[in-house]
Amino acid sequence: MYRSNTCGELRIENLNQRVTLAGWVQKVRNLGAMTFIDIRDRYGITQLVVEENSSEEIKSIATHLGREFVIQVTGDVIERASKNSKMETGDIEVLITELKVLNSSITPPFTIEENSDGGDEIRMKYRYLDLRRAPLKKAMILRHKMAQSIRTYLDKEGFLEIETPYLIKSTPEGARDFVVPSRMNLGEFYALPQSPQTFKQLLMVSGYDRYFQIVRCFRDEDLRADRQPEFTQIDCEMSFVDRDDVISTFEGMAKFLFKETLDVTLESTFPRITWDDAMARYGSDKPDIRFGMELNDITTEAKSADFVVFNSADHIGAIVAEGCASYTRKQIDELTAFVKRPQIGATGLVWVKFEEDGNIKSSIDKFFTSDQLKAWGDKCGAKGGDLMLITSGTRKKVLTALCELRLELGSRLGLRDKSVFAPLWVVDFPLLEWDEDSQRFFAMHHPFTSPKQDQLELFSTDPGAVKADAYDFVVNGVEVGGGSIRIHDSELQNKMFKVLGFTDEEARKQFGFLMDAFQYGAPPHGGIAFGFDRFCSLFGGSDSIRDYIAFPKNNSGRDVMIDSPSTIADAQLNELCLELTKNDDKE
Amino acid sequence: MYRSNTCGELRIENLNQRVTLAGWVQKVRNLGAMTFIDIRDRYGITQLVVEENSSEEIKSIATHLGREFVIQVTGDVIERASKNSKMETGDIEVLITELKVLNSSITPPFTIEENSDGGDEIRMKYRYLDLRRAPLKKAMILRHKMAQSIRTYLDKEGFLEIETPYLIKSTPEGARDFVVPSRMNLGEFYALPQSPQTFKQLLMVSGYDRYFQIVRCFRDEDLRADRQPEFTQIDCEMSFVDRDDVISTFEGMAKFLFKETLDVTLESTFPRITWDDAMARYGSDKPDIRFGMELNDITTEAKSADFVVFNSADHIGAIVAEGCASYTRKQIDELTAFVKRPQIGATGLVWVKFEEDGNIKSSIDKFFTSDQLKAWGDKCGAKGGDLMLITSGTRKKVLTALCELRLELGSRLGLRDKSVFAPLWVVDFPLLEWDEDSQRFFAMHHPFTSPKQDQLELFSTDPGAVKADAYDFVVNGVEVGGGSIRIHDSELQNKMFKVLGFTDEEARKQFGFLMDAFQYGAPPHGGIAFGFDRFCSLFGGSDSIRDYIAFPKNNSGRDVMIDSPSTIADAQLNELCLELTKNDDKE
Repeated sequence: MYRSNTCGELRIENLNQRVTLAGWVQKVRNLGAMTFIDIRDRYGITQLVVEENSSEEIKSIATHLGREFVIQVTGDVIERASKNSKMETGDIEVLITELKVLNSSITPPFTIEENSDGGDEIRMKYRYLDLRRAPLKKAMILRHKMAQSIRTYLDKEGFLEIETPYLIKSTPEGARDFVVPSRMNLGEFYALPQSPQTFKQLLMVSGYDRYFQIVRCFRDEDLRADRQPEFTQIDCEMSFVDRDDVISTFEGMAKFLFKETLDVTLESTFPRITWDDAMARYGSDKPDIRFGMELNDITTEAKSADFVVFNSADHIGAIVAEGCASYTRKQIDELTAFVKRPQIGATGLVWVKFEEDGNIKSSIDKFFTSDQLKAWGDKCGAKGGDLMLITSGTRKKVLTALCELRLELGSRLGLRDKSVFAPLWVVDFPLLEWDEDSQRFFAMHHPFTSPKQDQLELFSTDPGAVKADAYDFVVNGVEVGGGSIRIHDSELQNKMFKVLGFTDEEARKQFGFLMDAFQYGAPPHGGIAFGFDRFCSLFGGSDSIRDYIAFPKNNSGRDVMIDSPSTIADAQLNELCLELTKNDDKE
Repeated sequence: MYRSNTCGELRIENLNQRVTLAGWVQKVRNLGAMTFIDIRDRYGITQLVVEENSSEEIKSIATHLGREFVIQVTGDVIERASKNSKMETGDIEVLITELKVLNSSITPPFTIEENSDGGDEIRMKYRYLDLRRAPLKKAMILRHKMAQSIRTYLDKEGFLEIETPYLIKSTPEGARDFVVPSRMNLGEFYALPQSPQTFKQLLMVSGYDRYFQIVRCFRDEDLRADRQPEFTQIDCEMSFVDRDDVISTFEGMAKFLFKETLDVTLESTFPRITWDDAMARYGSDKPDIRFGMELNDITTEAKSADFVVFNSADHIGAIVAEGCASYTRKQIDELTAFVKRPQIGATGLVWVKFEEDGNIKSSIDKFFTSDQLKAWGDKCGAKGGDLMLITSGTRKKVLTALCELRLELGSRLGLRDKSVFAPLWVVDFPLLEWDEDSQRFFAMHHPFTSPKQDQLELFSTDPGAVKADAYDFVVNGVEVGGGSIRIHDSELQNKMFKVLGFTDEEARKQFGFLMDAFQYGAPPHGGIAFGFDRFCSLFGGSDSIRDYIAFPKNNSGRDVMIDSPSTIADAQLNELCLELTKNDDKE
C-alpha cells in the first residue's frame, strides 16, 4: 500500500501520528517561508505543509509540483494554527517529512473544482478528468449505494438476480434494435436487448418466481436530450401475484432506498391514481404532485356566451395559480408565449384575475359577466388574489398545454423543491393506442401486457376501450418505473398479437419461443422495470442522467473520449461478409 | 398473492393450518380411493391429497391434471401416515379443500426430474423447461448467492461498482471483437467490450481507487468446448497498491465466498508459486495442487546410457504414481495411448515399476541397470510399490504430456475430490510471448501489464526475458482469475506498444485516449478479473459453465431456444448502409 490513510480521514484524534498519504495535488500555495499543498483523493482533501526548516529536497520537490501531480507523502499530523471548519480534515495538517512524485501531470484543460470552467464538450472529451470533480464523484458513489441497497432489499425479499443474454434476437416491434453481425452464422445477426422482457417472462415459466437484474438495455433511437443509446434498468418479475402484490413489493423497495441512501422517510402508502384521473387532473400520466394547481374542465360553463374561440372548441380547461392575481401583463405574456411554443402548440391563453378586493378582471371582459367568471372561479376553487388561466382546443391539446403551464408555474412559484419527494402510482392505463398513420393499434406498454381481468370480454369486442393491468411509478413528475401483469395464457397472447396486426407467421417468427413456452404451464405473473439512471438523477436532485453515468455518449451517440463509433478494418468487414453501401444520399 | 406459503416450507409445526399453495404438478398418483399430487415450486415439493370424501369437483379436476399443470390449491396441513424423511416437507401433506387449474400444460418433451431423459439439444431448445430441474435451479441460486456475497465483501472493502459502457471501440489486438454498426454514424461501428480493461484504468486515473463490476464481456472466438461468446467477469481495479495488496484483498474475497456460500473455511494464506516453478513442477501455469505427483527432470541422469530415444531428447521428465507398481500392461497401455493422442502428442511412455519387494521392472531394462533406475527413483522420491512414468522430447512437449498424465492419474486415483478446494496464486509470469509465425512479441496477459519493477532496465535490453508483475488465481487446476500491476507511465506504455510492434499511429488510433489520460496524473494501479461463470461452476462442483448460465449459447454461438442469430429485414440493413456479400466460398 502506498498509504496508511486516505486524504479524507485524518482528524484531531490523529495528532502526532506519522502517516503516509497518496493522491493528487489540488492546489499549492507558496507563502515564502511555508508552502501549503492540498492533496486530494476519492475520500477528501488534506492540507500538507512544508516549513522553512524542511529538507532542501522536500522544498525543491514542492516548488516543482503542479496541479494534478500524483504524490506520495509521509509526515506527522499536527494541529492547524487556523482551522478550516468547512473541511472535514480542517483541524489538522500534515507536516511533510518525505515527499515523492509518483507521476506528473501536464496542465489539465479545465479546472478540477466543484464548478469547472470547462465547457460540456471538452469535459466529455476528458471525461476521466471531469470524473475527478466532486459533483461527479458524489454521483458515482450515490449510484453505487443505490445499486447496493436495491440488491440488499430484493435479496432479502427472496428475489434472485439472474443474468439474461445480451446477444439476442431482433424484433421489429418497439424501438429500433442495435444489431450485431454473426461471423459464425454468416448473414445472420444478433440484436442487443431493449429490455430482458421475454427472458424474464421465460424465467417465470421456469418457476423462478422472484427475479431481478440490474441490466444494460439498448435502443437505437434518434437521441432526444437526455436519452442514451445504452441505459440501465432495474428489471423485476414475480409469479403468482396480482397488481397490488407487485406495487406493494416495490413500494417497499422505494421506501427502503429513500431511507438508506437519502435518509428520507416516506409516509406509509403512496397515492394511486388512475390514468384517466391523472390525465383529467394533471394533463399528464406522470404528474408532479408536489403541488396542487389541478386542471379543471369548464367546457360547459365557458360555452355560455358568444365567444367564438370557446364555442368552437372541444374542450376548455383552466388552472388556478394561487396568489398570482398581481401578475403583470408582461408575466402573463411570458406564460402565453410559453404555451404557444411549437412544442406545446396552444393557440393562446385567457386570464382571469380574482383580486383581493373581490374585483374580477379578465382578458375576456367583453364576452362574460363578472358573475359568469366568478362561477368558473368557484368551480375551480379560486380565491381572492388568485389568477385563473384558461385555454381551449381539442382535449388533448388543452391537457398538454395546461400540464406544461402548471409545471412552469410550479417552478416559478418555488413549488418543486428537489429535496421534497412525492411518489405515486398511476394505474389502469389504456391497453392500446390507435395510430392514425398506420391505421392500427399499438401496445401502450408492450404486447405482453394483460388486459384488466374484468375486461377480457370487452377485449374481444372493443379492444380500444380496454384498460391494461399496468402501472407506472412516478416521482416528482418523472416516470421512474413501469410495469404490468402479463398475459400468461397462450390463446390470449395470440389474440393480442392479432389485434396488433401481426400475421400468425410474424408472431411465430418473432415470439414463437414465448408462445411455445406458454403451452407448458406458464404461471400468472407480472413485473416492473425502473430506469436506473433516471432513478439516480432523481435521488441526486439533478435533471441530467448523464451526470450519473460514468462514460455517457453525446446526442449523436458518440463517445467523444474514446472516439467511438469508428471505422473498422476491411478485413473485419470481409470476415462478416458485409459491405458498406454508399450513403451519400442519406447524409 | 396466489399463495399463503411456498411448496418448500410447511413442516409439522404447521399442522392444522389452512394454507394456499401454487405451483406445478410434479406427479399425480391415483390410488383409487385417494389421489396424491406432488406440487412443486422454486422452494420445494409438497404432497397434496384428495380423499374419498373430497368434493366431486375436486376429484374431477384432480383426475384431469397432467404433469406441469399450474395449480392453486387450498387445504389443511395434516400429518402424513407414512412420512418421507428424504423430503423436507415429508412429515406433512395438505388435504385439498379447493383446487384450481391456473394453466394447463401439454406434455413436456423430457422429464422434469433430477436427471432428465432429454438429450442436450432438446434441453437447450426448451431451456425454460430444463431450468425447472433441481440441478439447474441450484446452480442459479448458487450464482445469485455468489454475486451477492462478492458485492457484500467488496462494498465493505470500499470498492465502488461503476458501470462501464458496452458500446465501445474495436481494437484489433487480442481476440476478435463483436461489432455493432451505427445508424447515426453511418459506416462506423461500435465494438462490444472483451473486458472493461481500459475503462477501469481510466477510472483509476479519475481517482476511484477501488472499482469493481460484475460485467458481461464478449469475444467472437471460434468456440471451443465450454466457451461462450458472452461471459461474465468480476472486474476489479485498485490504485496505490502493489501486487501483494491486490493478492491479499482478493484472497480475502475468495475466503469470504468459500465461507458464505459453501461453508468452507480455508487456511489463512494461499500458496504462491512462480510461473517458472509451476511449469517445472506441474507442467502447467494452472496446477491442480490437491495432490502431489510433481514432475521431475531426469534429463542428466537418463542420458547416461546408450538409449537413443533419451539421448536425442532435449528434456526427459518423470512422474511417480504412488502405489501403482501393480498396474497391468493394459493400464499402462491406456496411459500411453492417452499421452499419444494428437492433443497431447507425446511419442511414448517409458515405465519403471518399483515393486514392494525391491525389485525394479521397466520397459527399458535393456538399456539401464537396476541401480541406474533406482537412482532415478530416488531422485523422484519413488518408494516400493510406486510406478514411475517417463517421457522425453522438447521441454514444452514433455511438460505438457506429464501435466496431462498427472491429471489423468490424479483422476483415476481419486485424488481430485470436487469437495476439496486447493487455491493458489501463480506469480511472475513472462511479460511477452514470441510468436514464430508473425515474428513478433505478444503480451502474455495484455499490453497494459507492467514489467516487474526491478526489471525495467532489462525491458529495454532484452524484453523477452522480462517477467511481468502479473498473477493468476488458480483453484483445482482451473484458472479462476488473473491480473497484474499495470503500467501507469505513459512513456513506458509507449515503449510497450513499440515492443509489441504497434506503429505510433496504430497505438494512437487505438489507445490514444488512454495514453492521453496517463499524461494527467495516473496513479500506480493494478487489478484482477475473475471468470464468474467458471467460479460458479467450480463452486458447484461442475465442469460445465453452461449449467451456471441461464440462457447459454451452443458451440456455434447460437441460442437454439430463441433461434438467434437470425436474418434481419432488408430495410434494417439499408438503414445501416450495409449489404450482405456472397459468402458461398466461405461456407
